[in-house]
Order: sequence, then structure tokens, then C-alpha cells
Amino acid sequence: MNELTGPVQIIGTGLLGTSIGLALRAAGVPVWLSDANPEHLRTAVSLGAGEHPPSGGVPQLVVVAVPPLTIAEVVLDALETGAVVTDIGSVKALPLDQVSDQAPESALARYVGSHPMAGSERSGPLAASAALFEGRPWAVTPHVHADPAAVALVEALVRSCGATPVRLSPVEHDLAVARTSHLPHLLAVLAAAQLTDAVPEHLTLSGQGVRDVTRVAGGDPHLYGQIIRANRTTVGDLLRDVRRQLDELIHAVDEPSADTLVEILNRGVAGTQVIPGKHGGPSLETGAVYVLVPDHPGELARLFTDIGEIGVNVEDLHIDHDPARPAGLVELVVESGAAERLRAALGERGWTTHR
Amino acid sequence: MNELTGPVQIIGTGLLGTSIGLALRAAGVPVWLSDANPEHLRTAVSLGAGEHPPSGGVPQLVVVAVPPLTIAEVVLDALETGAVVTDIGSVKALPLDQVSDQAPESALARYVGSHPMAGSERSGPLAASAALFEGRPWAVTPHVHADPAAVALVEALVRSCGATPVRLSPVEHDLAVARTSHLPHLLAVLAAAQLTDAVPEHLTLSGQGVRDVTRVAGGDPHLYGQIIRANRTTVGDLLRDVRRQLDELIHAVDEPSADTLVEILNRGVAGTQVIPGKHGGPSLETGAVYVLVPDHPGELARLFTDIGEIGVNVEDLHIDHDPARPAGLVELVVESGAAERLRAALGERGWTTHR
Repeated sequence: MNELTGPVQIIGTGLLGTSIGLALRAAGVPVWLSDANPEHLRTAVSLGAGEHPPSGGVPQLVVVAVPPLTIAEVVLDALETGAVVTDIGSVKALPLDQVSDQAPESALARYVGSHPMAGSERSGPLAASAALFEGRPWAVTPHVHADPAAVALVEALVRSCGATPVRLSPVEHDLAVARTSHLPHLLAVLAAAQLTDAVPEHLTLSGQGVRDVTRVAGGDPHLYGQIIRANRTTVGDLLRDVRRQLDELIHAVDEPSADTLVEILNRGVAGTQVIPGKHGGPSLETGAVYVLVPDHPGELARLFTDIGEIGVNVEDLHIDHDPARPAGLVELVVESGAAERLRAALGERGWTTHR
Repeated sequence: MNELTGPVQIIGTGLLGTSIGLALRAAGVPVWLSDANPEHLRTAVSLGAGEHPPSGGVPQLVVVAVPPLTIAEVVLDALETGAVVTDIGSVKALPLDQVSDQAPESALARYVGSHPMAGSERSGPLAASAALFEGRPWAVTPHVHADPAAVALVEALVRSCGATPVRLSPVEHDLAVARTSHLPHLLAVLAAAQLTDAVPEHLTLSGQGVRDVTRVAGGDPHLYGQIIRANRTTVGDLLRDVRRQLDELIHAVDEPSADTLVEILNRGVAGTQVIPGKHGGPSLETGAVYVLVPDHPGELARLFTDIGEIGVNVEDLHIDHDPARPAGLVELVVESGAAERLRAALGERGWTTHR
């Protein structure tokens, strides 16, 4: 049966496990929770992410949401219940190898790895959210002998959480995340590590660029260490690739010849252009309108009332509030064609605006 | 005289030059504009950034806002007027060398380089904003023989634009920006370049991390090529440093030994923690509250009215609007201690919220 009627047993109630529980409960699917950490479990249950499993109950689907090093062992255990089993670890080939080594063929057919591309800098059940997976890609990585019904059930799980299933082989998946996640993470780490050698006064010159580049380097070193080691071969190959390009870059910087350097920088621009827009379409061309919003209660609400009347769609916004100043600078991000119209209309309504 | 009474002559009416003009006009300082590109000049004047210089007029201060390769030549020219001269290029030691080579000592004393740490991905006068420098650091990099009155005048310029002067020697400045700007830029380029080798399906797994790391790599390759080559020695040294650390990283990934890898990742975490908060203090510990906002007009205004009544300060917010869905997900970033209170209070007022 391909319909996700549940119960879904979630093993591991950290950020992701608890968020899946919350999403499934919101979709009306029965959820059982378990965790080696009784405090996490208690928290997840109290948040409404699911219930304790009844004794002797058999789930329709088991979701293994445990740290990387214990995934294979927990998957093997779960397969013994006769349920379909998925794990949501960040690397797919290694746990598959480990599970294949030990599971009988009939059990292995019920194992379909997957990986939700969602998360947050925070961890633990208190940071969980039913909306964590909304609109996000969720890789589904069946091995060649997986039961199609099991694959369909895992894809139903993905959709119930509001995410979009992306079918990839385990090896393809690991290459994809090495490029789009592990390598960027490591390059961010190299950029951030350089900052520890800087004197504080030099750091005052930091702008948005270095904040963006190094943000992801703040993630949990133990968790990322496990993930990267689990994807060691692919990540190692990409790092060697990067090293070759770094040599090329050092040579280009040393030599007065402008062309090679610009060529390398152009490759960078090309790279930014192939990243899909957040919801799958091409990235929207946007412009910004800055509005000074005084620190009185109700000013922000008044701004949005006006924006609503003007009728321009706000794609994103940022508030920059310097505690030393009595007003905040709100940056409204709109489709670039609409920016000037919005700015002028807000100006007419008495707002202080800038481009 | 240290007070900025003007006129200030701005040579170059791109994003930065025009923004300085707009900021000074807002501060009531007379501004004269010139540019080799008559269209940019016309645009900047029509935006209110300044006027055409009267013939025979002598400015109090000249701001040279031209591309890197022409800075020294334009500075030398400007020094002949007897005015104090600053340039706002991204690299300070090289133009100083070039100017020192040719300017007589008395003229050189009136030259004080500087560099506003502000900008945007866009360029040209139409993208300019009087608020561009608000609260931003602006390096002031006098050479050892600069006239203190000239230095004070340039610092007055910085303050008139709402920025904070940061005094550094030219060489110190170049090292600081190599670490906080040029190196992160180049590492972002290396990360982005890897993406051009990926098949589109793999790229669908892209998350916020890779978008953050590679964002800055989208900048103008010709401009950045000039900047990096002007800072070639320092950037080359840092790149060699990075190459050593990359070798260490490759070795750590290849070897089963966990410790070295986690140690390197820990250096990355340490680096993210030394970046100052946007307004100079330590970074605020924040939490997020997610609110589902239906696509009806006025809903966002209603949300802000409620937030105003609840009385929690919103530090930043993001709107994630999937065109395929009838509601947007608004992420409210608040001081972490206030997150739960806000979420609960919004829930009581009928909003659908998540952690």
C-alpha cells in the first residue's frame, strides 16, 4: 500500500525527527516516537510530535533520525519489524553498504534511504517546526533492489511533510551533496579560520560578504565531522579538484596577466547563476527599497498597511536597527520592475525612502 | 579648518560617488559632481546628488570615486587644486605608492586615502542611496606625513555620511580587507565554480548554506580582478596560507583519524565568533518564530499590529513565499529569550505559528 496511513515510527527526536513528527501530526498521520535520550523524547511528545509506541505495535513506516554513526544499526533493527524503513542521514552510500552487508534480501527490499534538504543552525526538539520541510527538496535514494511500493511510501512521507521528492541513486546523491553542501561548508571553514588570525580592529571592517561566506561554518563540528567522514571519498576528490583550482588562482594572482584571474572569477559568476531559485524556478530579479521607520509602536504596521494599498508584492524584507539610532532602516525586497513605483508611492505617503 | 562646510567635489558618479553626494546633500553640504561618463553624471545630478561645478571654483574636499586603475592619476590631478583629497578605493597601499612617486611633499600632505565598507551587488548611479553608509565602518588610512587637519576633514566626511571612521595605516587596511573581503570572495568563487560541473538535478538539492557561501561570488569579475591585483602581494600570501590549510584538510579527510578534522572545523566555528555584530556590539542571541500569513491584503499589517501590541522587538524578518501556495511563511527573528512568548501570544490571537 502506497498511501501513508501510518503509524509512522520515528526513532530519534532531535530537530529533524521531531519536525517530521509535527508535520505528520498536522497531516493527521499517527506517529510513534522513541529516543535513547528520555528528555528529548519527553519534550517531543509534549510538543505534540507523537506518542509513545504501544507494546507489540507494528508501524507502516519507520523513520530513522539518529546521528550518522548509529544509522545502519538502527535501520537493521527496524527492518526486523517488517515495516518499510527510511533513514534521513546526510550521506547515503555508506549506510546502504553497511545495511546491505547484514540484511537478508527480502528485508533490504524494504529499505529506502532519503534525505530532507532542510534544517537550521539550531538542534534538538525545542527548535523543531512542522513547517521545516515546506517547499524544500527531499532526496529519495532507493538502491536497485528496493521494492517500488516501499519507494512510493517514502515519497508519500516526503509529500505529507510538504516537501518535494527528488529521486537520485545513493552515489549520485553523495556527489550532489558533496558539491552543494560539504564542499561549500569546508571552504567557509577555511575562510572563517583565517579570521582567527586577525586583530580585532581589522575585523571591524567586516561586511555582509564575509558574514555570508562564513555563516555556515558555525555548524556543529562533531556532527559535520561525522558527515564529511562518511562521504570521505567524494569530498576528498572534490577537495583535490579545489586544490588544483587554488594553484591556478595563486598563479593568476602572482602573474601580472589579468586574463586568467578574470576567467576564474567568471567561473564563479557562472556558478552563482546555476543555483535554482528557492522554489524551483529561476531566481527572481529583485530590487530594494529602503524605508526609515521611526521607533514608535505601530509604525511597522502602518508601513505594511500602506504597502498593501500600493499593491506591490514584498518578496523579502530586512530590518536593520542600530540601537544608537531612534529609527530602523527597513529594506523591502521587491521584483526589480516594481521598486521605483513602490519607493515613489511610499514617498507620497510621507515615508522617508531611499533606493 | 576641520569642519566640512564644502563644497565637496565628487569625481565619479557610480554607486558610491552618487551615494556620497546624496548623503552630503541630505546633510546640507554643497556638492559638485563630475564624471567621464556624461550619462552617469546626468543621472546623478537629476537624482539630487549635486550640481555641475562652477568654472574656477575651488572645492574644500575632493572625493575620488573612480575605478581602481585610474585612482592615482585622478588624485594627482585633484591635488593641484589645493584641496584636501581622498579616494575611496578598496586597496590603499598601491595608490599611495603611485601618488607619492609623483606628488610634491606639500601636496602629498593633503592626500588622505579612505574606504567605505558599504556597497551593494548593484552598481551605477540609479542604485545609489543616501543611506548606503549608515552605521557602516569607513576606513581612514592616512600616510605618515599627512596633515592632521586633512585627516580630520576626511573623518568629518565619513561622519556626515552616517558612517564610523576606523583609523588604519594603508598596509594594515590592505591586510584587513584581504582577510575580511578578498579571501572570502575568492573562496566563494572556488565553491561556486564547482557548481558549474554539477548536473541540474544535483543542484536541486541546494540549500541556504551554498547560497550564502557563494552569494558574493556573483560580483563584477573585472572590478574584482582589478581590486585583487592591486592587493596582489597580501592576497597571494593569504592564498598560500589557505593552501597549507587545505592540504591539512585533505589529509584529515583521507585519514580515519577524527581529531584533526574536528579541530579544523572548530577553527571555523571560532572564526564565525570573532566577527563583530552589525552595530559593533557582540552578536545578539536570536530565535525564530514562523508565522503562516495568508495571501489576503492587509494580513501582514494585521500581523505587525499584533506584534506591536505584544511588545516584542523584531530584529529581522524574512518572507518565504512559494508561488504555488496561498500563504507565505514569515520568519520573525527576535531575541532568543522572547521567542516563545511571542509565539504563544500570536497563537492566542489566531495566528498559525511554528518554532
